[in-house]
This record gives sequence, structure tokens and C-alpha cells, in this order.
Amino acid sequence: MIARAMQELVQNSSAIRAMFEEGRRMAAEYGAENVYDFSLGNPNVPAPAGVGAQIRNLTETVPPLKLHGYMPNAGFEEVRERIADSLNKRFFTSFGSYNILMTVGAAGGLNVALKTLLDPGDEVLVFAPFFGEYRSYVANHQGVLRVVPPEPEHFLLNLEAAERLVSRQTKAVILNNPNNPTGVVYPEDQIRQLSELLCRMEKKYGTSIYLISDEPYRELVYDGKKVPFLTKYYHNTIVGYSFSKSLSLPGERIGYLVMPDELDDARQIQAAAAVANRVLGFVNAPSLMQLAVAGCLEAKVDLDFYDRNRKSLCEGLDRYGYSYVKPEGAFYLWLKSPLEDERDFVAEAKKEHLLLVPGRSFEGPGYVRIAYCVSPETIERSMPAFGRLAERTVRRSWEK
Amino acid sequence: MIARAMQELVQNSSAIRAMFEEGRRMAAEYGAENVYDFSLGNPNVPAPAGVGAQIRNLTETVPPLKLHGYMPNAGFEEVRERIADSLNKRFFTSFGSYNILMTVGAAGGLNVALKTLLDPGDEVLVFAPFFGEYRSYVANHQGVLRVVPPEPEHFLLNLEAAERLVSRQTKAVILNNPNNPTGVVYPEDQIRQLSELLCRMEKKYGTSIYLISDEPYRELVYDGKKVPFLTKYYHNTIVGYSFSKSLSLPGERIGYLVMPDELDDARQIQAAAAVANRVLGFVNAPSLMQLAVAGCLEAKVDLDFYDRNRKSLCEGLDRYGYSYVKPEGAFYLWLKSPLEDERDFVAEAKKEHLLLVPGRSFEGPGYVRIAYCVSPETIERSMPAFGRLAERTVRRSWEK
Repeated sequence: MIARAMQELVQNSSAIRAMFEEGRRMAAEYGAENVYDFSLGNPNVPAPAGVGAQIRNLTETVPPLKLHGYMPNAGFEEVRERIADSLNKRFFTSFGSYNILMTVGAAGGLNVALKTLLDPGDEVLVFAPFFGEYRSYVANHQGVLRVVPPEPEHFLLNLEAAERLVSRQTKAVILNNPNNPTGVVYPEDQIRQLSELLCRMEKKYGTSIYLISDEPYRELVYDGKKVPFLTKYYHNTIVGYSFSKSLSLPGERIGYLVMPDELDDARQIQAAAAVANRVLGFVNAPSLMQLAVAGCLEAKVDLDFYDRNRKSLCEGLDRYGYSYVKPEGAFYLWLKSPLEDERDFVAEAKKEHLLLVPGRSFEGPGYVRIAYCVSPETIERSMPAFGRLAERTVRRSWEK
Repeated sequence: MIARAMQELVQNSSAIRAMFEEGRRMAAEYGAENVYDFSLGNPNVPAPAGVGAQIRNLTETVPPLKLHGYMPNAGFEEVRERIADSLNKRFFTSFGSYNILMTVGAAGGLNVALKTLLDPGDEVLVFAPFFGEYRSYVANHQGVLRVVPPEPEHFLLNLEAAERLVSRQTKAVILNNPNNPTGVVYPEDQIRQLSELLCRMEKKYGTSIYLISDEPYRELVYDGKKVPFLTKYYHNTIVGYSFSKSLSLPGERIGYLVMPDELDDARQIQAAAAVANRVLGFVNAPSLMQLAVAGCLEAKVDLDFYDRNRKSLCEGLDRYGYSYVKPEGAFYLWLKSPLEDERDFVAEAKKEHLLLVPGRSFEGPGYVRIAYCVSPETIERSMPAFGRLAERTVRRSWEK
């Protein structure tokens, strides 16, 4: 008998797997080039060439006992220092190595932060729609998730609703900027308002409310858009970062947490996070990859690739009269379902060999997520299918 | 405020860190060559040269999107298949890829297994003395740890005591073979007895009791000793393995779980473990390292190095009249403290610049752990210190 808490997760996972298998079956039946899979948030721009060169160089110059060996649970001192320096240069912060903890991806980092902070029953706010894994991460540490309903127009932060959900039990707020699944970048004025709200609530309840900013898509923004660096806006901010998207290393599980000195109980949190990294079984971020990313902090995947996809997808959808939230970051487009129940729309889309994810997977019903981290050809070739789908659904919704 | 559960862990961690800092201070004051640090279980034999060559080759031949990309949460299919094949060849098993889950080290694997199995309040048996992290791993998943007291003569499995502790609530038993901290290899007849005991208890209570065999030291055995492969002795066995010691890759966090078809609810457990890998934030074992170890399954660090250390350490200790458990595996020696409270002995040892770990860190008071994964020179040069320490402690205990 597996754990009860795992049973539902396994079921959900089986459903996703079934969808994936169905996609494979369709690819086999109709030819892979005739199935348009927009369901996976899987980077498809290769890592910059510098990464491979860096790895080869490390195996030739660093003694294996160091390269593959244990280091402090927080990570190699020099790696943390280089990351602190790089952040300082970009964001005019003044971090030292002790503000940085190397983690097993952003997922590892978030779990470390939550383990560090949560007592059983502590509440964690998330803004819908949100990356579904947050639900599991909070449950791992016996927290209670409080979901702020979406702001239904532009999918910005619904701060009024958030204010009603903050309580004395609120220990943390998770923010994902740029957002998965919407592709929205929360603007500076909303960040300021959120900061004011949290400060007010901290004062009201005499508590500390930690803002955990999950930023794997930080570098993936378009049209010169800026993502505010949250430690500068709110004192109790912990930033979680991953190199999965910026360097296309999702399989390597390498990222970091930033824990500024401005945090309430900063020293204790920094120490506890290193211990949490150990006791959760991560122990430390993979050693070779720590050193590899430290040598590639200025590198970035070819962002134009995603940007071109974004533009051609938007142009196509505009042509057919679809409504959607203008994507500003990440590689997701949040499409309004022309049918009331977006699962019906996803089913109709599948008939056109278009694979999309229903918004309710992210607690955003009525919308679907299109992941445009695909080949430009996939987008181009999928357009007639989107056209036919519009004929049957957009038109239908107009006629009502 | 950090989580209450973290506060004690941070304190313990600070104590260990203080010890470590003290060692560094001593090294600075007396010269590193005059401080004999036997406190860390940190491999000091470099990874086989094949590992570096393999990594370089992978960066040159595997496209980065695959090499560093996402794969199923359970790991690359071909990696899991190669590991299954290698186990089948060595142990006459018949595993397929679906029996193997790639994990972030053995620590990650253990957490995945416990997350998969434990409902809150489920009990987990461990045999003292044991690797202290098990306590945290069980607590992570709200299990209750039941500690089987040591068998005080040879530190074999105390099966009588175990029988008294098994109950209807017992969901799992963790076994560490070869054992850290004792260096003992549990022999086949004890494994058979343990299996019989667990089968009897499963029948008595109508439950499934899973034996989680934590085997990072499997390849580190001496004198031709054999470590029984537990899936062949007990149907409900899950094996956790790590390449940290066999390939000296402790910083890379790469290992696997074996989940045989003989497990009760095998299919469900295999599926749930992959989901647990994801939701715990590991997501998957580091991708490049998965492929690297798959190409080095026949390689092994220079075991003779540890064996020579073992022999010269034993010879020295014999000379001075110390009592200890004959080390058969891993790179630890379990020394009987000549003083009643082993912390006093550790303090005396420090005066001779010998850094040892008190047995109570492993719930084995009255003993100390000597980690002999050090340079042969450290052992040689430390012998006079052990001699002087014996003068002051072994003699003293004889005179009583």
C-alpha cells in the first residue's frame, strides 16, 4: 500500500501520462510533423556552446576529488560568491556568498525555503493561476495552501483578494514572475502594492510574512520588459532561481536561493536553509554543474528563438479571432477558451491534432496554456489547425 | 522565525560545524600535517579516470537538448536498463528498466521511498548504531522512528529486540549494509533471520513491511566478503544505491532505487516513487551524471587504498591495546571507548590532535567512529598520538 497522500498524485500523474501517451500514439498514427504538441514546458533551445566547453575544461583542470566531491551543503564558496557578484552587478544589490545557497533546481530551492519556514498548519498564499507543483511543495512541509483567485482581465495580481486571505497564520507568499502558465510579467507598481500590503499585514499581526519569488523564467522576457528584483521592494523576500531555462539545463537540476540580510532572522534562515538542503536529501546541488554554471553566468540561450515563436503564434491567433493574454515572458501563452468549459475546447483541439493544457490544471479554468517552446515549423504548420478550430469554436461562441 | 522542527537541527548542525571549525583552527595552529582528522566520511580516492573521459565524450557526442534536458522523472530509459542488466549479471536477478528509478544520491532515494510508503504516524525501524540522517528522513514524511538497540558484542542485527519493536504500525525497516558507523557487514544468516522475522510479522498483522536497504557502501568490502543482495532474501525489499563511494562522486548526487516486482503493490510503488521524485523537488537525477555513470558501471575506485588504510590502522590500534569491531566494509572503524563516556575520550583524543566522532551521534554510546578515508600518511603519523592516548586512557581503564 502506498501512502494515502500519494494515491491522488499518482492518479493525476497517470492522467498526464495518458495524455502524453496519446500524443505519442497520434504522432505514430498521423506522423510527428502533423501533431502539434503545445503541452510541455520543455526548453527546446539548446544550452549555449560555452556550457559544454566549460564542462570539458573543468574535467581537465579541476582534480576529481574537488570536482565531484562534497562541499558545504550551501555549495562551493567561490560559486556562491560569483553568483552574488553577478547579481550585485545586475541589480545593484550587495549580496555576499552567505546570501546564496546552491540548490537542486528551483524545485529543490522552493522545498528548502518551505522546509526552513513552515510549521505544520502555517499558511502559504499563491496567486492563481499557478504552477501546480506548488500544491505538493506546500503539502510536503504540512503547510496549508491558500489560493488567491485570478484577476480575470489581465491576470495580474489580485491584491484585493489576497488581502482578504492573509491572516495571522500566513507564513509565506509564493510569487512566480514571469508567470507560468500565463506568460504575464507582474509590473513594478503591483510589486510595490504587494510589498505595502505585506508590510501592513506584518504590522497588523506582528508576524513575518516571507515572499518566495520563484524566478526560473527571469531571463525569458520580451520587448525590453523588466522583471523587478523583489529583494529591493520587500524586506522579507527569498528568491528562487534555476538555470533550467536561461541555460537550457532542466535535466541538471541546478539553481540557487537568495536570502538577503534584510530578512527577519536572516542568519538563522541562511543556516537553516543549508541544513534543510541536507536533511531533505538534496545534500548539495550537483558539484560539477555548480562549477559549470559559475563559469557561464553571462551566457544565455538564444532568446530570439522563443520571441519569434511568440510573435508568429500571436499573429496567427489574432488572424483567427482568438482572445488571449499578451505574453510578455516565459514561453507560455494563456488563451481564452472560446467554449465555456475549456476541457471541451482542449478536446476539440485534439481533433485538430493540437495538444493544449486545460487551465484548471493551474486553477485557471476557462483558459488553456499554449507552450510555444516548440520548433517554428510546428507553429507554422499548426496554423491551419488553429484556423479550423476557430471555425468550430470561436465562431460558435460569437453566435451565442 | 524558522520552523520549530528546524531549530534543533540547526543547533546540532552548528555543533558539528563548530567541531569542523575547531579542526581548521587546529590545522592552522599546529600545521595540517599534525592534525589527524578522522571525523569525516568523505571519500578521498579520486573517481576512476574513465568518469572524466566519459563526461567529456558525452558533451561531444550527445546533443545538449538531450544531455541536459528533461527525461521521465524515473530517469533515462537506457540508463535504467543498463543498470538493471548490470544488477542481473551480478546478482542473477531479472530486473527490467521499470524496476530502477534514478535518484539524487542515496539520500534522495531514501526520501523518495519513504514519501512513497509512509502515512503520518507509520513506524520505521532502524538498527542502532545508525547514520543519524535517517532520523530526519523519517521525520520529513511524518513517520515515527523506532530504534532497535545495538547488539553490544559484534554490532550485528539485534533481532530479538527488533521483534519486540515491530507492530501493526511498522511500515518499513531501514538497513545499512555495510554499516556506517560500525563497518560491519551483516552476514547472510542474519539476513535470512531478519527476512523470516519480517515475514512472520507481516502474517501476524496482515500488513506489508518494506525493508529499505541503504547500500552506498556495497562495493567497499574487504577480504573477499560478500554483501547479500537483499531482494533475493525478502520479497518486500527496496534497495537504495549511490555512486558516491563506489565511483567517488559524492558531490554529484547520483544513485538509484531498485523496486522489484516481488514487492506488494509493486506497480503502484514504482509509479508513486517516480511521482515522489518529482513532487519532493528532485524532479529527476542529474541528467549528464545519469549518462556518465551508465557508461562506468563496471568501474570502481581503488579499493586497495582503503584496505591498506584499514590494515595499518588496525595494526596500530592492536599495538596499543585498543578494542574495536573488526571493520569489514565501508571506511569506518568502530572503536570501543576506553573511558565510560566516549565524549570524554573524544575530548582526550583532541588533545592529541585526533578528531573522532562520539558514538552517540549514531545512537551508539560508549564507542567512537574513526573514518579512515584519509591519506596513508595521516594514519602513519597519527599512530604515536593514538599511542599516547592509549597511555592515558586504555591503561587507565585497565587499572580500574
